[in-house]
Amino acid sequence: MTGTAPGQRAGTHKDEFDMTSANAYDVTTWPMGNAHEDIGAVINSIIADIKSRQALPDVNNGGKPGAVIYIPPGDFRLVTQVLIDISYLKIIGSGHGFTSSSIRFNTPAHELKHWHEIWPGGSRVLVDLPETDDAASRSAFLVKRSGNPRISSVEFADFCIDGLHFEGDENSYRNGKTGIHVASANDSFRITGMGFIYLEHGIVSHHSDALSIDNNFIAECGNCIELRGMGQACRISNNLIGAGYAGHSIYAENYGGVLVSANNVFPRGRSSIHFSGVARSSITGNRFHSFYPGMLIFSDDCSENLVSSNHFLRDGEPWSPMTPYDNGLDDLFGLLHINGSNNSIIANHISESIDTRLIKPPAAKPVIIRLVSGKENYVANNHIVATTVTPEPGDVPNSECFSTQVAAIISTKGLTTLDVTAVKVEQESTQNTVLDSGSDTQVMIDQAVNAFRGTPTPGQQQTSAAIA
Amino acid sequence: MTGTAPGQRAGTHKDEFDMTSANAYDVTTWPMGNAHEDIGAVINSIIADIKSRQALPDVNNGGKPGAVIYIPPGDFRLVTQVLIDISYLKIIGSGHGFTSSSIRFNTPAHELKHWHEIWPGGSRVLVDLPETDDAASRSAFLVKRSGNPRISSVEFADFCIDGLHFEGDENSYRNGKTGIHVASANDSFRITGMGFIYLEHGIVSHHSDALSIDNNFIAECGNCIELRGMGQACRISNNLIGAGYAGHSIYAENYGGVLVSANNVFPRGRSSIHFSGVARSSITGNRFHSFYPGMLIFSDDCSENLVSSNHFLRDGEPWSPMTPYDNGLDDLFGLLHINGSNNSIIANHISESIDTRLIKPPAAKPVIIRLVSGKENYVANNHIVATTVTPEPGDVPNSECFSTQVAAIISTKGLTTLDVTAVKVEQESTQNTVLDSGSDTQVMIDQAVNAFRGTPTPGQQQTSAAIA
Amino acid sequence: MTGTAPGQRAGTHKDEFDMTSANAYDVTTWPMGNAHEDIGAVINSIIADIKSRQALPDVNNGGKPGAVIYIPPGDFRLVTQVLIDISYLKIIGSGHGFTSSSIRFNTPAHELKHWHEIWPGGSRVLVDLPETDDAASRSAFLVKRSGNPRISSVEFADFCIDGLHFEGDENSYRNGKTGIHVASANDSFRITGMGFIYLEHGIVSHHSDALSIDNNFIAECGNCIELRGMGQACRISNNLIGAGYAGHSIYAENYGGVLVSANNVFPRGRSSIHFSGVARSSITGNRFHSFYPGMLIFSDDCSENLVSSNHFLRDGEPWSPMTPYDNGLDDLFGLLHINGSNNSIIANHISESIDTRLIKPPAAKPVIIRLVSGKENYVANNHIVATTVTPEPGDVPNSECFSTQVAAIISTKGLTTLDVTAVKVEQESTQNTVLDSGSDTQVMIDQAVNAFRGTPTPGQQQTSAAIA
Repeated sequence: MTGTAPGQRAGTHKDEFDMTSANAYDVTTWPMGNAHEDIGAVINSIIADIKSRQALPDVNNGGKPGAVIYIPPGDFRLVTQVLIDISYLKIIGSGHGFTSSSIRFNTPAHELKHWHEIWPGGSRVLVDLPETDDAASRSAFLVKRSGNPRISSVEFADFCIDGLHFEGDENSYRNGKTGIHVASANDSFRITGMGFIYLEHGIVSHHSDALSIDNNFIAECGNCIELRGMGQACRISNNLIGAGYAGHSIYAENYGGVLVSANNVFPRGRSSIHFSGVARSSITGNRFHSFYPGMLIFSDDCSENLVSSNHFLRDGEPWSPMTPYDNGLDDLFGLLHINGSNNSIIANHISESIDTRLIKPPAAKPVIIRLVSGKENYVANNHIVATTVTPEPGDVPNSECFSTQVAAIISTKGLTTLDVTAVKVEQESTQNTVLDSGSDTQVMIDQAVNAFRGTPTPGQQQTSAAIA
Repeated sequence: MTGTAPGQRAGTHKDEFDMTSANAYDVTTWPMGNAHEDIGAVINSIIADIKSRQALPDVNNGGKPGAVIYIPPGDFRLVTQVLIDISYLKIIGSGHGFTSSSIRFNTPAHELKHWHEIWPGGSRVLVDLPETDDAASRSAFLVKRSGNPRISSVEFADFCIDGLHFEGDENSYRNGKTGIHVASANDSFRITGMGFIYLEHGIVSHHSDALSIDNNFIAECGNCIELRGMGQACRISNNLIGAGYAGHSIYAENYGGVLVSANNVFPRGRSSIHFSGVARSSITGNRFHSFYPGMLIFSDDCSENLVSSNHFLRDGEPWSPMTPYDNGLDDLFGLLHINGSNNSIIANHISESIDTRLIKPPAAKPVIIRLVSGKENYVANNHIVATTVTPEPGDVPNSECFSTQVAAIISTKGLTTLDVTAVKVEQESTQNTVLDSGSDTQVMIDQAVNAFRGTPTPGQQQTSAAIA
Repeated sequence: MTGTAPGQRAGTHKDEFDMTSANAYDVTTWPMGNAHEDIGAVINSIIADIKSRQALPDVNNGGKPGAVIYIPPGDFRLVTQVLIDISYLKIIGSGHGFTSSSIRFNTPAHELKHWHEIWPGGSRVLVDLPETDDAASRSAFLVKRSGNPRISSVEFADFCIDGLHFEGDENSYRNGKTGIHVASANDSFRITGMGFIYLEHGIVSHHSDALSIDNNFIAECGNCIELRGMGQACRISNNLIGAGYAGHSIYAENYGGVLVSANNVFPRGRSSIHFSGVARSSITGNRFHSFYPGMLIFSDDCSENLVSSNHFLRDGEPWSPMTPYDNGLDDLFGLLHINGSNNSIIANHISESIDTRLIKPPAAKPVIIRLVSGKENYVANNHIVATTVTPEPGDVPNSECFSTQVAAIISTKGLTTLDVTAVKVEQESTQNTVLDSGSDTQVMIDQAVNAFRGTPTPGQQQTSAAIA
């Protein structure tokens, strides 16, 4: 075998006796298959080539360095699932290629025929897998390997995975397709710069250690990021994220030491972030925007997590095609809904601005931070701003999603104060500390079993005394 | 037409009948024009080629995937403005190429002749457009398209845009040149890893939705980042930024849901960050350094924004060539100057260390956080450190900018406390809450219409009482 | 000399008279040397070529744009140190290639022989330099230049530097090897996307201005990041970091305006972050995890720094091969150990969960935040959670590092409260303010010379009074 097989990137092969310099591939020049017709089969063929060339695990302190597979800009249909079972494989493109397929779906054909382009682009993988009942088997990229060590350092960068379109109500984003599904224990993976569109599941990763998900665009997906199984020390940062009304924007279960920071998470998303049984993790410096209650959910005894310096905004759906949908929760559920102990909720800004006619149950006083069960949580220095808004009847075409949304988000003048329960501590949650996160009248708390200091109000001063 | 036109990157064309694999270009191998003489004309020619090859908007669920244009390291003069009117175009280089042109300008010729190199480098675009009166028309890259959908996923990465040099006082950075000017509504753009130098405007983006500006080096520009028109859900993160004394480091107007996080913003900059009519946005985890008052300005009723976990430092200009300049504001203006309602300013560190002889107006007591108009802002847990400093007369050459600056910034020993107004709440701003951000004597506030709790002082304890 | 020398990346040379388009190299196609046998000699030869071609500092407003050197995936032994003395050089690979070499070292041979792969991978540099006494001379990449201007915009991206293996106890990571050593003053460098493994020093950078270290994987190194000499305005963000028990995870000395944000810093590390003589810098939004006291150390009068929105977790070593080691500090040292003035420690979550039988000195009450010397620090709204844990005797093979660690980190149910000193203010530290970071009984502070407000406890309310 030589290192100059066709399909390797020009400029990377040195001579025909040099095997390891053959580790850069281009899907469009690989001789087996046609990447435009089935990029999955092409990548699987490349992986088989890598495995046959890198067969020995220990040759002169090396031997299995992996490879890079390049996807240039273009439309590449994926009919065969890619199975990755080697470490150090990087798949990289030259464009995340996001565009709104939701606006496309909700725009009438007579407008669409004037559009410059209809579909997402960049280095674009069109997921066209046959229907199955199983998310893993309908994922474009499946990472799975048994044995030791854990598969390491697989990287996905700078390309687009597009679920394309489907029969039925596309607004649900429920098409059974997954972008990347990592099924077995893994270490030091990276997913960066990608675009994910119109997939029921964008990224599903099981048993991850030190995974980085950074600077991706994951939107108009049923669910965006799901960390499943158990794992630790991952990082979800600097992403633009927005799931559908039926799914998770960010979800993790039984993970520890996760850092979720500096993401801009926009609607819709059944929740903006949901932790289940997660411990000792951080949610800091994010901007969350939702159209429903239950933006942040801690379930199944989440403990010792930090939620700080985040901006939460909950308002109403301004875009008419999506107004029929919500997540089914009512306004007493809590915008932040906390089950668990020893968590910290500090220095967040929380805005709720809603049409009182849409409050559920009718005339209820919405709950912002709700401690449902557990103990010894610390809630301090959160600024809660609640206002009512009366949307003017819109008469804009569905394609005007952008101006409708921006007008809604920056329309803060002349709002009326909405009466809310800033913090509600249920009886099942005790020994908590609530400081400066709502005035005496805005917080529902049993002070016999919890510590409380209300935010001062005008005309009232918290007093100091000289020490004797 | 074939896919193997000269100028496309080797390794990306598969065969001469394969059109879409032809979507990777290199400016140095494109047959029309000479990229070193006018990279603008070359890129426009490439864009024309893309448009002619990708003419149909809906071919087999695709058809317009866009392209990537590569700029290798080198000096590339731009005489013709690039006009981008297609989605999914990525322009990428291999080096941001920043070096200080300010030090070069302020270094005498007899020293310069010994320098290793004089100019910025990397994949470097030398902006040499003719003079005009209009910022848009003197921008190296103009993005503009009418019709639907909005132009999407244009990406700029890892190259250098250099305004070169100009007649007059280069210390102003006022040369009429712009790096990237986005004129029409846009979605999911990315500007990452770039270098911007010596441009009156680095990045100007109108009507942006979900724009990412991440990991760029934007310095020695008149203005660095300007979000104009109206827009939402953008992300300005992880950048190194520093504008001139006459311009904005970060500016946004009528945007909602912007996340400005983890930037290191150094002097000078008329302001470090200025929001006008911005709502529901976040400024978190940044490090801001300025030589003038008015580091953070909220104007025109900014509302429901979060300013948390930032480090603000204001000291004096240590480098002699720049000492004649300032932003014209006095020390009563407020280091943080807030017009608007329902904003949160929580958990920031603010240092001011200045030579009392330079305070304006003379003998004034500087104001750190000033609530000028609006209502119901929440200011809590900010630590304000104010000291006087007496700079020793410097006798260092201008080329020693670095050691002068570092010596100034780490010289914190033996400083004397400066008496400041930690928080000043003007009569036009009411119903605010100010907690633990200054002692009773350091805060000017009408407690009849605002809520206040002073930071305790030694020997004084805020008292608790058992609940009856 | 022509621009079409062999070794330059295909697609970047335009014609043989075009020199500057020749600035893209590939180590595997360069005609001098063999990159697999000694990539150091190859890169030095390329640098010599760049210098000979780019000899004049000022040719038509340019002349020295630098170059990019590409390292494809593969095993590349480095026998000769690379010396970089030109600006605008970017060295880039296609894979950070991390895998755990610690697990490999601690796994018996009979298991190893079944492993899929043994070594790190990606674009992998195997550091095989001869032994010396000097860290700089045993660094794979040495950046050093005298004269003016400072060397600028050198970039390292997306490859792996692996210290390989060595005689003796590999668990110490003490092999005398360094990945990148920057010895002279520098500006606007970038280190992004890299992997560093099994090096005694990952990155050592002296005299840096506006350095970015972003999105790297730096683990199983003696020390990970060291900023030495003096410098300013750097950014260490979004990295995954974990040093050995004998070294620094993040260290800086005499720097100002550093921003350390959104890193996930895992054990072990003698400290998680250590500042010496650092001023006006920020540590925000990080997740720190350690097995020893002294997670954060400020020494030599650190001043005006902000520590906010971080998550600190200190628990016990769960993996048996590493249980013999620690950093030698006892539990009275302080988990956060502060020497210096005017620092801010705000809105952090701090968890300590340890086996009381391992407390040193025996039966001591551990100290969490300790103000050792200096004045006027501000400690507010930190949530300290201290619990005891009784690890069950593990009987898992050493290769099961992952499940052992995850089980430990998420095991928060049924923990017992551990009595600790939440904040201890030593006599040598005065005029500090401590608010809501521990109850009256948990804080040791002289209230005559410090300001204090204890966190309220259940049944106790801090009182308000109407203003007269």
